[in-house]
Amino acid sequence: MSHNTFGHLFRVTTWGESHGPALGCVVDGCPPGIALTAEMIQRFLDKRRPGSGKFVTQRQEPDAVRILSGVFEDERSNGQRTTGTPISLMIENTDQRSKDYSEIAQAFRPGHADYAYFAKYGVRDYRGGGRSSARETAARVAAGAIARLVIPGVTVRAALTQIGPHAINRENWDWGQVERNPYWSPDAAIVPVWEEHLEKIRKAGSSTGAIVEVEAIGVPAGWGAPLYGKLDAELAAALMSINAAKGVEIGEGFASAALTGEDNADAMRLGPDGQPAFLSNHAGGILGGISTGQPVVARVAFKPTSSILIPRQTLNEAGQEVDLRTKGRHDPCVGIRGVPVVEAMTACVLADAFLRHRGQTGGGAFTLSAQA
Amino acid sequence: MSHNTFGHLFRVTTWGESHGPALGCVVDGCPPGIALTAEMIQRFLDKRRPGSGKFVTQRQEPDAVRILSGVFEDERSNGQRTTGTPISLMIENTDQRSKDYSEIAQAFRPGHADYAYFAKYGVRDYRGGGRSSARETAARVAAGAIARLVIPGVTVRAALTQIGPHAINRENWDWGQVERNPYWSPDAAIVPVWEEHLEKIRKAGSSTGAIVEVEAIGVPAGWGAPLYGKLDAELAAALMSINAAKGVEIGEGFASAALTGEDNADAMRLGPDGQPAFLSNHAGGILGGISTGQPVVARVAFKPTSSILIPRQTLNEAGQEVDLRTKGRHDPCVGIRGVPVVEAMTACVLADAFLRHRGQTGGGAFTLSAQA
Amino acid sequence: MSHNTFGHLFRVTTWGESHGPALGCVVDGCPPGIALTAEMIQRFLDKRRPGSGKFVTQRQEPDAVRILSGVFEDERSNGQRTTGTPISLMIENTDQRSKDYSEIAQAFRPGHADYAYFAKYGVRDYRGGGRSSARETAARVAAGAIARLVIPGVTVRAALTQIGPHAINRENWDWGQVERNPYWSPDAAIVPVWEEHLEKIRKAGSSTGAIVEVEAIGVPAGWGAPLYGKLDAELAAALMSINAAKGVEIGEGFASAALTGEDNADAMRLGPDGQPAFLSNHAGGILGGISTGQPVVARVAFKPTSSILIPRQTLNEAGQEVDLRTKGRHDPCVGIRGVPVVEAMTACVLADAFLRHRGQTGGGAFTLSAQA
Amino acid sequence: MSHNTFGHLFRVTTWGESHGPALGCVVDGCPPGIALTAEMIQRFLDKRRPGSGKFVTQRQEPDAVRILSGVFEDERSNGQRTTGTPISLMIENTDQRSKDYSEIAQAFRPGHADYAYFAKYGVRDYRGGGRSSARETAARVAAGAIARLVIPGVTVRAALTQIGPHAINRENWDWGQVERNPYWSPDAAIVPVWEEHLEKIRKAGSSTGAIVEVEAIGVPAGWGAPLYGKLDAELAAALMSINAAKGVEIGEGFASAALTGEDNADAMRLGPDGQPAFLSNHAGGILGGISTGQPVVARVAFKPTSSILIPRQTLNEAGQEVDLRTKGRHDPCVGIRGVPVVEAMTACVLADAFLRHRGQTGGGAFTLSAQA
Repeated sequence: MSHNTFGHLFRVTTWGESHGPALGCVVDGCPPGIALTAEMIQRFLDKRRPGSGKFVTQRQEPDAVRILSGVFEDERSNGQRTTGTPISLMIENTDQRSKDYSEIAQAFRPGHADYAYFAKYGVRDYRGGGRSSARETAARVAAGAIARLVIPGVTVRAALTQIGPHAINRENWDWGQVERNPYWSPDAAIVPVWEEHLEKIRKAGSSTGAIVEVEAIGVPAGWGAPLYGKLDAELAAALMSINAAKGVEIGEGFASAALTGEDNADAMRLGPDGQPAFLSNHAGGILGGISTGQPVVARVAFKPTSSILIPRQTLNEAGQEVDLRTKGRHDPCVGIRGVPVVEAMTACVLADAFLRHRGQTGGGAFTLSAQA
Repeated sequence: MSHNTFGHLFRVTTWGESHGPALGCVVDGCPPGIALTAEMIQRFLDKRRPGSGKFVTQRQEPDAVRILSGVFEDERSNGQRTTGTPISLMIENTDQRSKDYSEIAQAFRPGHADYAYFAKYGVRDYRGGGRSSARETAARVAAGAIARLVIPGVTVRAALTQIGPHAINRENWDWGQVERNPYWSPDAAIVPVWEEHLEKIRKAGSSTGAIVEVEAIGVPAGWGAPLYGKLDAELAAALMSINAAKGVEIGEGFASAALTGEDNADAMRLGPDGQPAFLSNHAGGILGGISTGQPVVARVAFKPTSSILIPRQTLNEAGQEVDLRTKGRHDPCVGIRGVPVVEAMTACVLADAFLRHRGQTGGGAFTLSAQA
Repeated sequence: MSHNTFGHLFRVTTWGESHGPALGCVVDGCPPGIALTAEMIQRFLDKRRPGSGKFVTQRQEPDAVRILSGVFEDERSNGQRTTGTPISLMIENTDQRSKDYSEIAQAFRPGHADYAYFAKYGVRDYRGGGRSSARETAARVAAGAIARLVIPGVTVRAALTQIGPHAINRENWDWGQVERNPYWSPDAAIVPVWEEHLEKIRKAGSSTGAIVEVEAIGVPAGWGAPLYGKLDAELAAALMSINAAKGVEIGEGFASAALTGEDNADAMRLGPDGQPAFLSNHAGGILGGISTGQPVVARVAFKPTSSILIPRQTLNEAGQEVDLRTKGRHDPCVGIRGVPVVEAMTACVLADAFLRHRGQTGGGAFTLSAQA
Repeated sequence: MSHNTFGHLFRVTTWGESHGPALGCVVDGCPPGIALTAEMIQRFLDKRRPGSGKFVTQRQEPDAVRILSGVFEDERSNGQRTTGTPISLMIENTDQRSKDYSEIAQAFRPGHADYAYFAKYGVRDYRGGGRSSARETAARVAAGAIARLVIPGVTVRAALTQIGPHAINRENWDWGQVERNPYWSPDAAIVPVWEEHLEKIRKAGSSTGAIVEVEAIGVPAGWGAPLYGKLDAELAAALMSINAAKGVEIGEGFASAALTGEDNADAMRLGPDGQPAFLSNHAGGILGGISTGQPVVARVAFKPTSSILIPRQTLNEAGQEVDLRTKGRHDPCVGIRGVPVVEAMTACVLADAFLRHRGQTGGGAFTLSAQA
């Protein structure tokens, strides 16, 4: 995780501002021979796309991705395949109404990156937040689509578990519901509650936070590179790097602080198939920074976006105290669009962990004697 | 964060197992000319040292650190100084009672890294957890002591805010209390509650989780390297890499999910000194991955250690179902010793962020026109 | 230097194939506030451009570069400036006659990367050499143009010193000549010799090797990060990574093997300005991996390109022995176009070394007491 | 290659000064399960050890290496094995006569790193060259011994091909001779010539340069990570990072500049075993940055060491012009001891390339249809 690149063997470098001509990424280190078309990436971008619901920003862009390099097709290749060379992806920005942002050219939106970028760089592209815009996450989602192909045995899926103060009832959890409502809720019962809350927030010109939970099923035991490339450390970095993320937890997470050792540790027995089986998953599928074979589970807290219509006290570049309302088009709940982004980052971390594990050890997992 | 190295310009590589001859680290990229003696490192190690309280492991070791390289002293140097070359630190292991661990040679402690290491590597040093032992954190603390010297204007300090279900009352927060009790509590009132809880846990042969909060004061605006080297992303990785850490949050953290934009965003005004001043610090001193000049605030959740005396269901390497009690000497609350480790990791991340910021921009912060 | 990225703080990631839709690079870590327009990059690309001489490939492309991110201009910025965010550059491929390459779809050009890419990846974009094409160097030249702006006090310039067996007479060296002939020769007298040689080579459908020498003037003492980020080690990697490069030497280089210590070591005296002055520059401006303040001097040997019209024995993917002539359009002397590429890589290495030095030490150089 | 670490998956971090208490390295990323004892490392150190010949420095140290971490042995492990965790190696300095170096405390040895370190860091350990001493190469040799075990099918061996102006006759090349003379010469006939030359140099208090050639046999096709992690680029960096190295070339190297395409390109045919076979090896086993299956061949030029008894003009830290003779104990030909160091660096680069190749692609090589 270094400036605008993340990953070690599966490396993603993103670029682009909200209101520049385009944004994109370079995915380097992808294994060769993987079938890859723009459509396979596009369907994940469509999931993230602004304008797909009433409570996400009304900016309308097709977000059409182009693959500029790294793939090849001829009569022998059985469709378009990755070549092992860097895959460059580009999404043109087609709906940049820069005039919307004229007011924030000089004043810093409270709670936004505006002031921090100014203090660091002295110059900033204030249009739509420039580089700090959530629009950059489109590039992450595109990279994540490729990452999924690198680990075909792994399913990465996320859901929204809380909007504002309203958490789902985990008893109702049904993955089948997640794509049936515009909020990626696994609990159908909470949907009307969230709708009402969001409507109130929207009318008030306010915004609200949210929590996203992600799980990765099918991760075999052995991925992760202790001690500083621990799978959970890499996940924490990747998820915390998402715009508006303020917290990351693995498995039982913060709740584990209140537990005892015997309640928290996941006991082991042999499963019906003679394989090691855990009797619970408080660990979230990771022990000592290495995957255990259980589902990898993480949660990310998103703060409410700072671009709101309610006037706020702030400063401008001239050092004057001013009040600012952020007009523009903004998500009342940025966490909703965070769902596909959390999935994407998780997939990228896992793809990288897989390649590194394969590099250092050959890629398998050692089995117990009785399994051999 | 890559295998056993973390940092970019201020790079720390740690090595060593719990029961090997020694452990240590190499600190590379430290600026030259900094006064550094073993004593300056030792005092932080003493703070972390096992045996310093009733509720930390009774292993008795002096943990004496030696500086093997990277410093120089002659009649002109005004004491021993760093030279800009790698600083190698070593701590010998002197109290390794390997026989204590004979039982876990083949069985996997539930909730411990044992099984994961076995699955990944096939071979593991089971004595005291080997590489996955919390003993490795001594090397982190040593590196952190050097990191502090790289950023002399910054104060990094941590406290324990929760043990088991018992959280402090934040109204009572007094940094002056932290060094006056063996639990690093900033709330004197909670100390007897924690003592009672820990005594109960110890008698039961159990363990308990905890939460540590760290703050860094004096971090100027501008540190952090968006987007994937965001200051909060680097912190999240560094803190999550600590043994037993299961969650990390910045500023308001998970609580921000329940807030509205106007409640969460920190308004700005000019302070009495004419400098930008925030009216609150929900952001935890970081916006857009860049420090704002406010205190950087993070929290880490530690799970209860998995090495407990209570028998637990598990497997052994032969693939048999067994029950296991972990004898040995273990902390009933690993979070207590986590306090100096959290400080150290935070200091390392900040030192690295400072050097990188200085590299890319020269190191200053841009000021508002009225300040110039 | 990792896969398709090079540099540490000034990082360049390139992408693109010879016959894909485009190629480009992402320059990450560039300091903010630097005036940068496409024209400032374009003039270096024009220098490298195919079609600028009789003895470089006749492929005709404008090689027009677009800046897609990382710059910003408004009424206060005094022209377009870098923002500190990643700079994405794209050059569209407009003259890709894929049919020219149909013959090499299955057979491996001897001496070319064809077979090695096949063995490594199993699939390869054979059109124009795909990723291994010298066309990728356009992205390097673009990045180098930005690197020069990061180190404005440094002048990086290169010349061709040998084509085939014909070396220049160093007594005739005149930098003023370099841009006055299409071969970047600093020796006007050798130009007709080279022309005759190249004409003979071209008629024979053959190719020829060459040597490029680069010097960087104005590099202050202190750049370079020993031991494995030595300035000469970084230069060696960067220059050896250029297509067709087979050797790199610094200062006296291979000739130093034949020297004695007293002949090779550069004696020091105070210059007329009271500053340290070296009496010779056998070291090529680098000692112990750190710049000394003298001009940095390196040489790169380029092999003759392997794409020639003369039929050669080789194999095809079916495992059959075949003879192959490479038609297409190719440089008889790839070293000629190597001149701006060597300059660009040198500039990138120096820009990175400067930023790293500034990061670790603050960026200055220590001076002798008498200078203080 | 970053400061004091090199490699990506097989990472080596070295530390230590010539006259500090010890020096060593941390080898991170070594695969688990490899048999490793100190003796297996020691025999390579003994090969490099000072004092093993008349013409290497007379410093007498056993250079005994200790393994401090990363290995484990129990009754089931079939001897001591690597565990996949970082391997820390330490060599104590036992023969540091610091008084020998008192004269150079303030004056800069011409041609040495003294002045450059001073300018960069302001403080330097002048005793024996401190960090810039060739003594650091002991750590490289130790790491190289481990690297060899990671690629057991590869043989890495080097020889000295030139001392001063005296090059071997390649017709006489006999690997069997290399260990039979103290100069690692593959040409028995040159040995008396070199002895006479070295004797003359030694008597004059001078020093001489040399050239080392290394070859790696058994490297399969497919290793290397284009474009900036090319196998030859990594080799160039690794070899140029060795003390006193001033040039690196691959295969035909600088001589390729004088060749034509048809003379330089290695034609291919099927070998007697039906496998691809090259009819020559001008490429030095690397095309497009990827190994071809032929022997990898490189050469390194070493300058004469700058520590000589002949007085030389220089400056001191006070800014005064002085004359300096370097007494101490020094190699008249540092290139002789360079032989095992060149082998070690080559082995490290190959081990890293293997692990990275295995990470990205699984580790195999694609074969021609007829081979399948």
